Amino acid sequence: MSSFDQDDLLKRLRRIEGQVAGISRMVADDRYCIDVLTQVSAVTKALQSVSLKLLDAHLAGCVVDAAREGGPEAEAKVKEASDAIARLVRS
Amino acid sequence: MSSFDQDDLLKRLRRIEGQVAGISRMVADDRYCIDVLTQVSAVTKALQSVSLKLLDAHLAGCVVDAAREGGPEAEAKVKEASDAIARLVRS
Amino acid sequence: MSSFDQDDLLKRLRRIEGQVAGISRMVADDRYCIDVLTQVSAVTKALQSVSLKLLDAHLAGCVVDAAREGGPEAEAKVKEASDAIARLVRS
Amino acid sequence: MSSFDQDDLLKRLRRIEGQVAGISRMVADDRYCIDVLTQVSAVTKALQSVSLKLLDAHLAGCVVDAAREGGPEAEAKVKEASDAIARLVRS
Repeated sequence: MSSFDQDDLLKRLRRIEGQVAGISRMVADDRYCIDVLTQVSAVTKALQSVSLKLLDAHLAGCVVDAAREGGPEAEAKVKEASDAIARLVRS
Repeated sequence: MSSFDQDDLLKRLRRIEGQVAGISRMVADDRYCIDVLTQVSAVTKALQSVSLKLLDAHLAGCVVDAAREGGPEAEAKVKEASDAIARLVRS
Repeated sequence: MSSFDQDDLLKRLRRIEGQVAGISRMVADDRYCIDVLTQVSAVTKALQSVSLKLLDAHLAGCVVDAAREGGPEAEAKVKEASDAIARLVRS
Repeated sequence: MSSFDQDDLLKRLRRIEGQVAGISRMVADDRYCIDVLTQVSAVTKALQSVSLKLLDAHLAGCVVDAAREGGPEAEAKVKEASDAIARLVRS
């Protein structure tokens, strides 16, 4: 995996996991829909930040390393990154 | 809370919670960034479905009920729903 | 069409049209990709605002009116609005 | 500008410009909100494709070239691309 702050990412993911558990409790407690929706939007944004951190690390790590080596490996890595970006933009 | 399939929603949320825990494990195991990103995009889409189900129920329930009563209550409910939709679209 | 500020919407759409024409010129002039991307993101946000204004008006107008009449007409209008919201969220 | 099919991009942008003009006419003709919203979602998706094509070209061109040269130039290009991706994801 490319170099990035693994602890930071794990901390964010644990927080997201807790937020999702909290949303489950809100639904089980029949809480007002709009309040639940507000929490879901917050989790979506938190996930976006995780994705962007992963992508930054991947570009700066794997893609740059492959570019230096050149040839089909570089093209494959760039295509792979582009496809991941497309999935992210369309999700 | 408006009428919707609470069990279905809770099942979806539990699955999402499990997926987020799985992503944490992938990060802890130094798995390839692109594979982790693919999972994060899947969780984002699953959350979107939860949001849309909540919103459908809210429109069909609270907003329609308030509309029938009319007056400022109806306007407030529509404004509240519109703001929730804006947060969803922009997240 | 539901009641909303038609002039405001037309002004926004004309501005968006001009922005898209500007992006074409940037591409034709071989301008730097990142600068072009910045403009495309701006147009996407401007379109989002147009969508949200249309949706607000539709909820406050057609959906509320149909809710007051009740019956299958109300359900159809809510379903239609929910589908439009889903398209917006997923676009 | 990185190498990509300029004609294809210009054709797409001209089509988008025409679609936006069409939406203006729909609004001026007081067409049904949901139909207008459907067109706006289509334009948003078309813009997304333009963005992803630009980004692909930029990664494969400028970013790879800078990576080969290495040093601060490479880091700056990756950071710039990451920021553009973030704007795209959040728009």
